[in-house]
Amino acid sequence: MDEPTPQLRDKHRLLSELARRRGFFWGSFEIYGGVSGFIDLGPMGTGLKREIEDTWREFFLRRHGFVEISTPIITPQRVLEASGHIKNFKDPMTECTNCHRRFRADQLIKENTGTETEGLDLEQLTILLKQAKCPECGGILGAPQYFVTMFKTNIGPYGEDPAYTRPEAAQGIFVDFHRVLEVMRERFPLGIAQVGTVLRNEISPRQGPIRLREFTIMDFEIFFDPETPECPYLEEVKDDKLFIVTEDTRRKGKNETTRITTAEALEKRLVKSPWMAYFMAQSTRFLAKLGIDQHNQRFFEKLSTERAHYSAQTFDHEVKLDRWDWVEVAGFAYRTDYDLRSHMQATGIDLRVFKAYDSPVEKTIRTIRPSHEKIRQKFGKDAGRIISLLGKEDLPRILQGKKTGDSIRIEAHDIPIELFDTKEETIKETGAKFLPHVIEPSFGVERLVYSTLEHNLRMKDERLILSLPFGIAPIQAAVYPLVNKDGLVEKAQSVHRSLREGGLRVEYDDAGSIGRRYARADEAGIPLGITVDYDTLKDDTVTLRDRDSWNQIRVKVKELKPTIDSIVNTGFPTKTR
Amino acid sequence: MDEPTPQLRDKHRLLSELARRRGFFWGSFEIYGGVSGFIDLGPMGTGLKREIEDTWREFFLRRHGFVEISTPIITPQRVLEASGHIKNFKDPMTECTNCHRRFRADQLIKENTGTETEGLDLEQLTILLKQAKCPECGGILGAPQYFVTMFKTNIGPYGEDPAYTRPEAAQGIFVDFHRVLEVMRERFPLGIAQVGTVLRNEISPRQGPIRLREFTIMDFEIFFDPETPECPYLEEVKDDKLFIVTEDTRRKGKNETTRITTAEALEKRLVKSPWMAYFMAQSTRFLAKLGIDQHNQRFFEKLSTERAHYSAQTFDHEVKLDRWDWVEVAGFAYRTDYDLRSHMQATGIDLRVFKAYDSPVEKTIRTIRPSHEKIRQKFGKDAGRIISLLGKEDLPRILQGKKTGDSIRIEAHDIPIELFDTKEETIKETGAKFLPHVIEPSFGVERLVYSTLEHNLRMKDERLILSLPFGIAPIQAAVYPLVNKDGLVEKAQSVHRSLREGGLRVEYDDAGSIGRRYARADEAGIPLGITVDYDTLKDDTVTLRDRDSWNQIRVKVKELKPTIDSIVNTGFPTKTR
Repeated sequence: MDEPTPQLRDKHRLLSELARRRGFFWGSFEIYGGVSGFIDLGPMGTGLKREIEDTWREFFLRRHGFVEISTPIITPQRVLEASGHIKNFKDPMTECTNCHRRFRADQLIKENTGTETEGLDLEQLTILLKQAKCPECGGILGAPQYFVTMFKTNIGPYGEDPAYTRPEAAQGIFVDFHRVLEVMRERFPLGIAQVGTVLRNEISPRQGPIRLREFTIMDFEIFFDPETPECPYLEEVKDDKLFIVTEDTRRKGKNETTRITTAEALEKRLVKSPWMAYFMAQSTRFLAKLGIDQHNQRFFEKLSTERAHYSAQTFDHEVKLDRWDWVEVAGFAYRTDYDLRSHMQATGIDLRVFKAYDSPVEKTIRTIRPSHEKIRQKFGKDAGRIISLLGKEDLPRILQGKKTGDSIRIEAHDIPIELFDTKEETIKETGAKFLPHVIEPSFGVERLVYSTLEHNLRMKDERLILSLPFGIAPIQAAVYPLVNKDGLVEKAQSVHRSLREGGLRVEYDDAGSIGRRYARADEAGIPLGITVDYDTLKDDTVTLRDRDSWNQIRVKVKELKPTIDSIVNTGFPTKTR
Repeated sequence: MDEPTPQLRDKHRLLSELARRRGFFWGSFEIYGGVSGFIDLGPMGTGLKREIEDTWREFFLRRHGFVEISTPIITPQRVLEASGHIKNFKDPMTECTNCHRRFRADQLIKENTGTETEGLDLEQLTILLKQAKCPECGGILGAPQYFVTMFKTNIGPYGEDPAYTRPEAAQGIFVDFHRVLEVMRERFPLGIAQVGTVLRNEISPRQGPIRLREFTIMDFEIFFDPETPECPYLEEVKDDKLFIVTEDTRRKGKNETTRITTAEALEKRLVKSPWMAYFMAQSTRFLAKLGIDQHNQRFFEKLSTERAHYSAQTFDHEVKLDRWDWVEVAGFAYRTDYDLRSHMQATGIDLRVFKAYDSPVEKTIRTIRPSHEKIRQKFGKDAGRIISLLGKEDLPRILQGKKTGDSIRIEAHDIPIELFDTKEETIKETGAKFLPHVIEPSFGVERLVYSTLEHNLRMKDERLILSLPFGIAPIQAAVYPLVNKDGLVEKAQSVHRSLREGGLRVEYDDAGSIGRRYARADEAGIPLGITVDYDTLKDDTVTLRDRDSWNQIRVKVKELKPTIDSIVNTGFPTKTR
């Protein structure tokens, strides 16, 4: 990696200004003074976000035949009770006893004292809070309490149908799992994704575009049979390196990165599931495709105390950012069967999957039945009632461990176990039901947008350039008439139209001097510039300009599309005008 | 239009079952007993929705160079107070005095008595409610009250930052208007769109996929100078017919459709804005592209009593549906400068746009200033204070209409108007500021999805076919190995992969008999089927099957892509195998 030039030291400020100027993002409700934890995406930001989402779909869904669904943001309380969110999705809050401002207790302690606080309980936080002070007025901080960080509301005009805005899109997937499995004709393993808005009512978010109360998540659950946890695609990435800060390393109080191939990480059980390892490798490639070098990526394993309530192993996929150091852009969680089991328990609906054996299996089972004849002999006119009552009992359980001479009591009668017949029966089972296990890769789109912008920010001759890769650039080329007269406009518009119809994301820009237009396009991350000038009218050629090198070549209009295709594959020619 | 075959009489039921079976949509939270007003989109529904959104972007945004932004769902109360939603976005609710169930009063009256109730006030509804009964228990209905139909919540752990989920995406656009205008370098007219989730806390929604509490809106605001309201694209659609039920017709108690060209509709002032007329024509084309024949479309003009609080003219773009008759899928509102003016007043921030004159305009203005010399002569040591106080007054207003001999009072002093100098000055104005007017086309995506499905539903030999147009079909082709052995699988997978890499949305399906797979694909709206059989291994040809005619042709694998391209343009060859 190149060292950042001195001017690029405060990348967050430079980027925020550029983002506002060129229409990537800015704080929401600006004219109303702003509300922290919300950002707006402008035309360029909305475009970049969509390209990142589509690139993600290609990496994680389409090539595997996995599917995407769409479920509501508003979620009834009973669903989030079953999923464990009402109980667990909360943050410790402290209130200043002097100015009464409220803060997230764990973050405040970390900022004040540097102590790592993830996973600490209220008691531990209470002790640590005594060493901290209110960051606003210096006052004494009160005892911490938990605050459920979901936006609460009600469905309909009744108060009795409480609901929350979803904190993750995953629950919609779990609730729909069986319906989708049926639609997909029981195809297994099954991958189901959802890209959509989630909301987290953070206590006091203060990290601009990084800690948002409302953002887009790409949640993706792969359901597999825990008895056959293999991933058929693993071969493709087995030699890909993973950069991991392991739980083991962290327990030793260290932060070193283990660099290990995907295959080795599985072999050494650093990663517990082949699907997890496969998607971690794909995620590394995905971020590289966005322009984030692997050396600025790492997987940070969570300690058991830090993991979400549903997870057996978790890695945060982190990206190094100038202002915030390592920031999570994706999480990889081994959710086991936690969620399906919880919803199955809460609803009583069987969410297990039937798995046929290769051939039916013969199974011997022991059945216990009261001998009607013997009971009639012993109990006479009471026999009918006794037999009927025995039919309602769980006889195998009741009779377990009993010996000859023992009896069981039904109303006023003692029934000797000798009156029961035990039989061995052979049945054929064609298959069995199991509850799938789940690996979840989950991505925060706005953080990916921000990380992509920061890692593509360059400085050249004291000017900012956003070197977005061609494939994700929201605008891939801009067409400029040199001047707005003498027929250049019509020609430029026709070039613009034909490139647009050829499938390129292309803009037309006729405002200001050509130099200013180039500078603007460099900041907006537009890879190619096409200038129509007086020579164009003579020989039907245009100037094709490269954003990153500022090199220019002269190209025939009719060869523009193939030239651009070849540049996308092999780079811009080095020859300059 | 063909008459529906008898089996297609209850299209809603047939479609709902198909939608569930093939993965288009179903009710949300099914395993929890369901919550009315929410639907889930399955894999096919999510795909179809995305294609409809992208088709819409092409029709309304890309070709005009208009832009898309993305703003939060959670909206502070003060923003919605300014926009008028807190005051106006409400429905009349009545509660049964017997069973205490709650209903939307106007809809209940309409269902009970057939009376049109849109726009009636509480007093009028109270009278009409006396003729209605509780639909659940037959009880007497209580007096109606208004209920704000937005989901209420709070931002952060304080109760003092109340907020709502947005009922439209438009407000995010208005709040950001000035920022986007700047990003777009003051390009004007400016079109800004937003595609995103909106929520409306309906009182008792009972129309399945049609009346939703949470849905996706495509809101699009075109900002223009009211002094130059022309639309430069009008020529393209001037001869397109619009089918309108005008306000005038409706006032006469009738429901007839006026069929009139877009140009005439403007000429006769049936449509008040050229931009509105242009987008109504484009919207008609857009729906036709989704497979909704124009004869099943109409524009239903709202009466002034029915219009939203911000609108000077409104048309509902309606589609005829089997169960619900005419249903609004889009609204066209002339929002004037209502919203920008409201936000400008609430924030004190100037949201006007500067318009340069062609050449600077000389303007004579009259200035009034106190003569310091004369005031000093008359008031001596008090003069300084008097001059200072006069500086704070709006002198032109105070002195307006006053004659020689009159005076104005400043503290204890009467200042004769003779002590003021009046001067005429000539200044050059380079331009003026104006508040743009707005035309809003706004589309409900889930209703478009439903209407698209219903209008493409056909019956052939007692089997359902979903004749989705190729361009919007979520899956455009399916590849089938005839059997899962003898090398057919590998061949079929390679055909599948090459078509996918060629940019087609293509599925691989090897489950069940080939006949069942065809039937399934017909229901899922997959236009083309490609079957790999034993002949494929000999001569490298496959069977290409048409969903709508069931015709089949034999095609060389390497000619598959060009053959499909030609079918998309000219239709499936009529020759059958």
